[in-house]
Amino acid sequence: MALCSMRKARGCWRFIRALHTGPEAVPAPQKDAVKRVFSGIQPTGIPHLGNYLGAIESWVRLQDKHSSVLYSIVDLHSITAAQDPAVLRQSILDMTAALLACGINPEKSILFQQSQVSEHTQLSWILTCMVRLPRLQHLHQWKAKTAKQKHDGTVGLLTYPVLQAADVLLYKSTHVPVGEDQVQHMELVQDLARGFNRKYGEFFPVPKSILKDVKTQTPPGKKASPVSHLGTQDEEVCVPGVYHLISLTHLSHRERNCQFK
Amino acid sequence: MALCSMRKARGCWRFIRALHTGPEAVPAPQKDAVKRVFSGIQPTGIPHLGNYLGAIESWVRLQDKHSSVLYSIVDLHSITAAQDPAVLRQSILDMTAALLACGINPEKSILFQQSQVSEHTQLSWILTCMVRLPRLQHLHQWKAKTAKQKHDGTVGLLTYPVLQAADVLLYKSTHVPVGEDQVQHMELVQDLARGFNRKYGEFFPVPKSILKDVKTQTPPGKKASPVSHLGTQDEEVCVPGVYHLISLTHLSHRERNCQFK
Repeated sequence: MALCSMRKARGCWRFIRALHTGPEAVPAPQKDAVKRVFSGIQPTGIPHLGNYLGAIESWVRLQDKHSSVLYSIVDLHSITAAQDPAVLRQSILDMTAALLACGINPEKSILFQQSQVSEHTQLSWILTCMVRLPRLQHLHQWKAKTAKQKHDGTVGLLTYPVLQAADVLLYKSTHVPVGEDQVQHMELVQDLARGFNRKYGEFFPVPKSILKDVKTQTPPGKKASPVSHLGTQDEEVCVPGVYHLISLTHLSHRERNCQFK
Repeated sequence: MALCSMRKARGCWRFIRALHTGPEAVPAPQKDAVKRVFSGIQPTGIPHLGNYLGAIESWVRLQDKHSSVLYSIVDLHSITAAQDPAVLRQSILDMTAALLACGINPEKSILFQQSQVSEHTQLSWILTCMVRLPRLQHLHQWKAKTAKQKHDGTVGLLTYPVLQAADVLLYKSTHVPVGEDQVQHMELVQDLARGFNRKYGEFFPVPKSILKDVKTQTPPGKKASPVSHLGTQDEEVCVPGVYHLISLTHLSHRERNCQFK
């Protein structure tokens, strides 16, 4: 029975192979890549002063400076913490309205909800299969979080830097505004881009950080993490005080509620 | 500037809220759920004798016994190990042809390629945010793998049981053929379904295992893992010798090459 089936299968293979020639990935020459800025903000509802001064104000400036700018409301990141679904849905709308009111112009930049683009999690899975566990376990933010939660953090909290990498690389972004607390995560993005390119041919631009004059978010009385500045930082497009807002996941509930209303 | 923007934002919120009433998830009553069988097979190319006797033969029988049967070629699982893209593409076609030739009938069951359905990785991310790291680290297969690779496994190898859970739950599957080596993973699927239902209302059926008379895959000379049999095993639909083939990831290269050709 088995051998008879396999004989039939051979006929099928020939037929199916003839139909599929297999699409070849076209390598994108990195040097000619468009300058593309990507940044994300968590749907924390109505933005607070920190959101506005730390990011939104700079986002408005960035969309005037660059021809290709993408801003994402990163709701997939927000579920690394417990969420009430109804509140989250409302917070996404509130954040969208606030960004538009603050000057994010859909004619100059693309504003979108992360979970509406399924390719974020698809690329994230591919990258998850390229990163080793110790690399994620040694990130300062994971260590700080698990120290608080007695090593009981969810796997989402461990792997969200990989989803961040997918967010950035999915659009072949070349520049990402980051805060000092995100330097390690940005190094991971760069390493994943290089690793992918080494394995499968030049495909992703290695994105550069937009980082300057950013205050550390280390709490008073705590020793600052020994984070190093990026070697690939791009001075030309430096913007003072820009925080990569995906890190706002780590603000306390009290801080989030310190809003304008 | 900030306060002025926030006043403008209030107008936007009212407008956007009026447009979006927020879709409400309709809970699916679990007792009335359709009996649905799900199983996956890795695209290892031309199937070997183990594939045929351990799974494909039983798959053919299952599609005759149940009205709703889904079989997936789980290519996203196969990238937890290093793959040549061209070989992988061909292996997917080879496996499809072999399954059709062996009697998988697209009129009786749904046969599909996992990576073509983006919701697998989307649900996987949601479930990743619901599982704690120690739970995955204590799975026997992860411990065995990392022991071999000196704790250097990729994060994909750690988290693939969560993707398995997404594979099963995505279709509200009620029955899954599993081998003894997958019992722990099936317990994880069930716990994730129960955890999700507890949090967000009855949504996923808690799937049962189709497990009987399955030989352990523990290598000779090694002590068998202390896996317990599932309390929710369904005797009615038990099929002898069925292996949940996602576990074929763990066959050696030599074993995979022991093919019919």
